[in-house]
This record gives sequence, structure tokens and C-alpha cells, in this order.
Amino acid sequence: MLNHKDILSMSQLTSAEIELILNTADSLKEIMRRDIKKVPTLRGKSIISFFYEPSTRTRTSFEMAAKMLSADTISISASTSSMEKGETLIDTAKNLQAMRPDLIIIRHSCSGAPHLIARHVKANVINAGDGINEHPTQALLDLYTIREKKGRIGGLKVLIMGDIAHSRVARSNIIGLKKMGAEVTVSGPPTMIPVYMDSLGVEVVYNPKKAIRGKDVVMALRIQLERQKSNLFPSLREYSSFFSIKGDLMEYAKDDVMIMHPGPINRGVEISSEVADGPYSVILDQVENGVAIRMALLYLLIGGGRGGNFN
Amino acid sequence: MLNHKDILSMSQLTSAEIELILNTADSLKEIMRRDIKKVPTLRGKSIISFFYEPSTRTRTSFEMAAKMLSADTISISASTSSMEKGETLIDTAKNLQAMRPDLIIIRHSCSGAPHLIARHVKANVINAGDGINEHPTQALLDLYTIREKKGRIGGLKVLIMGDIAHSRVARSNIIGLKKMGAEVTVSGPPTMIPVYMDSLGVEVVYNPKKAIRGKDVVMALRIQLERQKSNLFPSLREYSSFFSIKGDLMEYAKDDVMIMHPGPINRGVEISSEVADGPYSVILDQVENGVAIRMALLYLLIGGGRGGNFN
Amino acid sequence: MLNHKDILSMSQLTSAEIELILNTADSLKEIMRRDIKKVPTLRGKSIISFFYEPSTRTRTSFEMAAKMLSADTISISASTSSMEKGETLIDTAKNLQAMRPDLIIIRHSCSGAPHLIARHVKANVINAGDGINEHPTQALLDLYTIREKKGRIGGLKVLIMGDIAHSRVARSNIIGLKKMGAEVTVSGPPTMIPVYMDSLGVEVVYNPKKAIRGKDVVMALRIQLERQKSNLFPSLREYSSFFSIKGDLMEYAKDDVMIMHPGPINRGVEISSEVADGPYSVILDQVENGVAIRMALLYLLIGGGRGGNFN
Repeated sequence: MLNHKDILSMSQLTSAEIELILNTADSLKEIMRRDIKKVPTLRGKSIISFFYEPSTRTRTSFEMAAKMLSADTISISASTSSMEKGETLIDTAKNLQAMRPDLIIIRHSCSGAPHLIARHVKANVINAGDGINEHPTQALLDLYTIREKKGRIGGLKVLIMGDIAHSRVARSNIIGLKKMGAEVTVSGPPTMIPVYMDSLGVEVVYNPKKAIRGKDVVMALRIQLERQKSNLFPSLREYSSFFSIKGDLMEYAKDDVMIMHPGPINRGVEISSEVADGPYSVILDQVENGVAIRMALLYLLIGGGRGGNFN
Repeated sequence: MLNHKDILSMSQLTSAEIELILNTADSLKEIMRRDIKKVPTLRGKSIISFFYEPSTRTRTSFEMAAKMLSADTISISASTSSMEKGETLIDTAKNLQAMRPDLIIIRHSCSGAPHLIARHVKANVINAGDGINEHPTQALLDLYTIREKKGRIGGLKVLIMGDIAHSRVARSNIIGLKKMGAEVTVSGPPTMIPVYMDSLGVEVVYNPKKAIRGKDVVMALRIQLERQKSNLFPSLREYSSFFSIKGDLMEYAKDDVMIMHPGPINRGVEISSEVADGPYSVILDQVENGVAIRMALLYLLIGGGRGGNFN
Repeated sequence: MLNHKDILSMSQLTSAEIELILNTADSLKEIMRRDIKKVPTLRGKSIISFFYEPSTRTRTSFEMAAKMLSADTISISASTSSMEKGETLIDTAKNLQAMRPDLIIIRHSCSGAPHLIARHVKANVINAGDGINEHPTQALLDLYTIREKKGRIGGLKVLIMGDIAHSRVARSNIIGLKKMGAEVTVSGPPTMIPVYMDSLGVEVVYNPKKAIRGKDVVMALRIQLERQKSNLFPSLREYSSFFSIKGDLMEYAKDDVMIMHPGPINRGVEISSEVADGPYSVILDQVENGVAIRMALLYLLIGGGRGGNFN
């Protein structure tokens, strides 16, 4: 059993809890490959997904997971909501709670928004990404994918490359990887590496060729093109000539390196097409595993009382 | 049985019919508190919800209600619809009808739009708010909440405070409250009180301190901030200093006064936070009861043939 | 059985396959008129509908069809998707595929987009309209409606009137009608008639009065008002005075002529209200039959393995 009402961050989870989540995902993943992909586990449970930022993959992934477990889902996007009418976030949360959903999934551009909501509702809450803070379900699916492909997480050397400072994916992964015993290195332009890396026990190597050497796993982050204007880096061309995961950089990588990316990818910017589509890439496995991880979280949070009935 | 194809207004309902709806909501509300919140009553029934105005709470409330009764729901919002292609409202309605839904829920910025649609479709129609005309499901959930908390409606003294002239919530509540035997008073700036109040048997008291005295129920209306530009009132600050339901005004209220608001609330404008979150407030009960009322309406309109099977 | 993974165009279908689809729609249409409109045929199958262009009727029609067959549906519209983040279409498709849906329905403003997606996913794909290329489900529901009302398709004389050059509906219908043995004539302003009509075995008659004479079926196309600016025709008034299906033109039509329109209609532009709402019009039958045709396609593509269990 998971002793949490909410899944808000990787910080809150112990390594034993992470392992429980990954193991549960393992049991559930096989449902996705069935001819009839539906089990009655969460019948009569209602889930509200509330996305204040556009998203295809994360929202769809949660909805697929919910429907396979027979939960009812209601999807709200900020553009069609009362948000425009000036209601506070807490009031929205309390109003949703009054309709007695079992679980609320929230993505928000403000760091901490899901935590605020979680404190004001009885429903379980899952953080589907909050500002530049955390994206725990992404980190869990990444950990699952690493364990699935490499057989373990502990002891692996993992490089995260790109805009570490503004990435909730990086943050959640660093926390999760450290808890599971991996060694984490980050690389990227100095303006994109936060100063507190040391305190997290993370190695910083600015030179990408040196950084990639000997790593078991390389995780490219998405460059947020809209941020380009803010002078964080001189130009896309300069970024990609140095830090893009592509042929010349791959020459320095281990023979059995595994390449990850949280998507959506900017081809030719943070990763080249040959690498993204090549034999070392597990990018689409990450997407598939995302559904399994979200099934696991839904099951552990709101399906617990009814045992392991996945048939 | 409810002898109506459609629920378009409080005017159309007799007090006996209102009572039937409230009693049905009473039987259904307990489903919301079950562990498995789902009964098969409306299995195989299809509901289209068509919202031409943004809404979180009303649309979500209807969807929760529909799913708990096992109906299928399809949600259309104006921004993603053919509306942009210049089709008339009647043509849209006829086209939806041709797909044979059992029920259509409609919110529209034009008064009378649901009535127009109802005349052109075989499906049952529920008005989820039309312009400044009516919002009958809001009035029904308000009546339900009053009866639940006060034990009765008849004989109660109810004050509605705010922009009466432009509020469909006020209009539907006045009609419903009068039918159920309550005494209704309205208060607000003179520019916001329509001249026909007398003819509805409603008392007008412009002074809010006098208006609140002796009332069992006080209903604050939402000030629509976008209307501020139209010079209906000098300033928000002036409005809220006189008409906001807050500490100084509450001193004139009865000891067991009940404070209502249809939401979303503008904290510090039409109601203070201390009152909205205080012991007299039933604002969140209203939201919860909204789901029960909508379950009742769906059941009475399209589930009637199959008896009281709520198990 | 239908020997296709995808339904992308009328060109790909043989007349025998078209007949199979129409016959299957015939068996399924009766479900729409049941009191409980739901069969378990596609339980546990997941369908993603991805609309890059606004649509009410087509999207709703597919969703109604899917729900009546008990499939799970997830709806994505471009405005709420990662599209805004610059991901390529193929990457979006591969990401959706990784979540293992059984079927993807796609509408896109670029001709060929569904074909591109179909080549990159294992899921079955249905083209719900691509640019000015094809709209096969519209043509199938039109063929179904003609056969239902006229008892046959072969040998009928069909006129398609309007902007043939930019209409995916015209294109799919021409191909389908020819395959089923109908004689097809097109009419409209010369700027709207493409030069390759001859090669398709289609007669061109510019004079609408001559064109309509002796036709069993007249199909009016929607004039896309947004295209008016591009100088394809002098004015709406000039277009409608010559080519609108209205009283003066109807005098030249056969006594048992049947009037069709794919919707949404511009009343007074390509068709008059008296004709659209008159005794010869089958416009709303087309909409109803659209649901039956889409049920048939869903059944044939992803329900095949479980036999004809429509109970």
C-alpha cells in the first residue's frame, strides 16, 4: 500500500514506494496488450483531469489509463473553465471537491498549485506537472523504462542534458534517480545549470563530450523554444551544435547507451532524427510505459480496497 | 412522473413538480457518497451537452450526474463547433437530433435559445442557463439546499442581493421561491433592480441593512465584473462597501441566517471571505446538491420507464 | 471482411467493399432506434479522435457511433494539443500509437495527413476529412442515403453543384458514385470546376438549369464563405442567383428528385430554406445515416473478430 493521499513530487516518495509503483505498473502493463483492454477495477470511481496548460500526451495517457481500469473521467481545460471568470484556484478546487470526485489530476503553470489544491480537497490528487517544479509521473515512467531495459537503476550512470534550470522533468528525475541509487550528471550551457546541483549530489560537466562518456543512460530535455527570446542562450544553432544528441556526440557514448526524451521532441534541436529514431532510443517505450505507470498510480490511490483484480 | 418533455424554466413547473424533483434528488444523493458511485439506471441513454458559454461547475456537475447514472455523454463547446461556420441554431439542433440523442443540455448567451431548440427536437432538453432569462437547475438546487438545511421552504424569508436585473439565477429563484411559498425580498443598487418586481410579489428594499434584517436566507449574486464598464454602478469599491455580504452587514442578520451564492464567487466584492468560508455559508453544499438535482432531472426525464432502480 | 487496415479514401474501396459497408450499416442502424442504444460489441476497444479542424457533426457522429458500440473514446482537438509545441505530425502519430489505441480518427486541413499517419501506426485509421482531398465517410453515408431512398445507386443520374474544385465531399462522392454505377454531372461557376473532370468520366454542364434536368439526385455543396475573398467568384449574390438550389431552379428538376447537402448549410446561399426544409430534401437523413455508417466502419475495422453480436 502507498501511504499517501496524493502524488505531488518525487521528494515525497521513498525508494520502497517507488519500487511498489514500478512493480504495480509491471502487473498492469500487460492489460494494454490484450485484445479487450479493460478491467473493472475502478468501476464507479470518478476522475477529473484539470489541465491549465495544453497537453496531448500526458492528458491522453491518463485518460487511457483511467478507461482501461473502467473509471469515469471528466476533462476540464482552462480555456473552457470558470478560471476566466476570476475564481481563485482554491475555490475551484473546493467546488470540484463538492462534486465528490475520487481523484483530481492537475497540470498548472504555477509551481506548487497541485500542493495547494491537495491541501483543500478530500479527493486524491496527482501532479501532472507544475511550473518548473516537478513532474513526478514523468520521472516514474522514466525510472520504469530504465529498469525495464537495463534490469536495474541502482549503480547506473545517468546524464541529463539541456535546460536543467527550467525543467520540471529534470528535477523530478534527479530526485528519483538519486533515491534509486543511480549516479546523476547534468550538462548544458552554464546559464541553464542551476547552482544548487552540488547540494543534490549531482555532478556538473559543462563539456558535453566529456559528460556523455561512460554513461548508461542519456536523457535529452526539450528546449522550450518560447524561452529563446529571454537570452538564456545565444541561438538555437549554437545550442544544437554543442548540446544536441547527435552523431558526433554519440561517438563518445557507451556502446549500450540508452537515449531518452520526455517529448515532444524538437528534431534537430536537442536531438537529431537519426538518434531519436535509432536503435539506442527508447522514446516511444517511455510513452507506452507512461500509461502503465498512470494505471499503477490510479490503482494504488483509489483502487486499493478491491485487491488485485485485473481480470 | 414529470409531465414535461423539457426543463426550460421555473415558470413551467408547479409546486408539486418541484417537490417531486427535490424528493427524487433526495433518493439519489446518497449514491454520491457510495464507494462505487454508479447505478445502471441510464445505461444506453445518450446525452449531448452543448455549452455556448464557458462553464466549469455546471457542465462538470451535469457530467458527474450523467456518469453516475451510467449514461453516455458527448460534450460540445461553441469554440470547437460548426457554429463558427455560420450555421443557424435551429439547424444545429436538428442536426444533433438526427443523431438521436436522448437528451440535450444547453447553455446559451441568448435568452430563449433552449426554448427554440426544444421546439425543434424530439430529445428532451434541459436549460443550463440562457442569457439573462433563467437558470432553472440552479434554482432547483438552491431550493433543495434551503429545504435540506431549514427543513422547509414555505414561510421562509429570503433576501436576494445584487444585480437582480441581469441575473438569470435571481429570476429563476424568485419564481421558484414564490411557488414554494417563501417571501422574497431583493436589494441592490437601484440601477440593478428591475421595475417589474412588484408584479412578481417581491419586496424591494434598497437599504441593505434594512433588507437583511429578519431574513432566514440571504443569497448573494455574482457581480459580473465584465459588466462594470457599462456604468451600471459607479465602482466595485462603492458596490462592495454597501452591498457586500460582510461583517458589518451580518450584524443585522438573524442568528441562524443561511448564506448562499451560486458561484463562482468574487471574494471581497459581493461577499467577504470570512462570510463565504464561515459557519452560515452553504455555498459548497449548493455545489454538491447540484449534482443530486441534475441526477434527479436526468432520471425523471429519460429514466422514468425503468422504475426506481438505484442499485 | 474488409481487407483494409485503414479507411482513407473512396479510391481504395471496391464496389463490393462499399456494398459490404452499406449492408453492415443497415444491420446497425436499428440500434439507434432502440430504447437502450448500446451493444457490447466494441467493449475494451479504445478510439482516439484527433480533429485539427473544428467540427461538430462529424466528431459527434463518430462519438455517438463509438459509444453505441461500447468503445472508449478520447477526443483531442488541435487547440489543446502539443501541436502548438511544434511536434511533427508523424511524431504525434507515433506517440499516440505508443499508447496502443485500437483506432485513430483524424481530420486535418492538409491533404494526405491521414495517409501519412496510417503508414506510421499499427492502429486502424479513418480519414474524417483531409484538406481538399477526400471525406470518405461522408461519401459512404451519401451512398447509403441514396440507396435507402432510391432503392439502388447504379444507373441513377446525380448532379453535384457548387465549388467542385475545392470540395473533398465532391471528390469522394464522384469516386464512390462512379464505382457504384451512377452517372455523375457537375455544375458551378467555371472557376470552381477542375479541368480533370473528363478523366474521371464526369459530365460538366455549366448552365445549372440544363444541368439539373432529368437528375434523380441533386447534391448541393457548401460554399465556404471564408473563400469568398480569394476572387473565385464575383459575389455571393451572383453565386446564389445562378447556382442556389431554389424555387426557379427546382422547376427544371424531376418530380421525384432528391436533394442532398453535406451540411452545415448556408441558407439562402447554396440552397434556399424552402428546398432545404422541403419534401425533396434528405439532409437530416444523411446526418442520421452518418452515425450508422460510422458504426459499420468501426465494427468492420476493429470489431470483426467477435462476429455479429449486436444484442
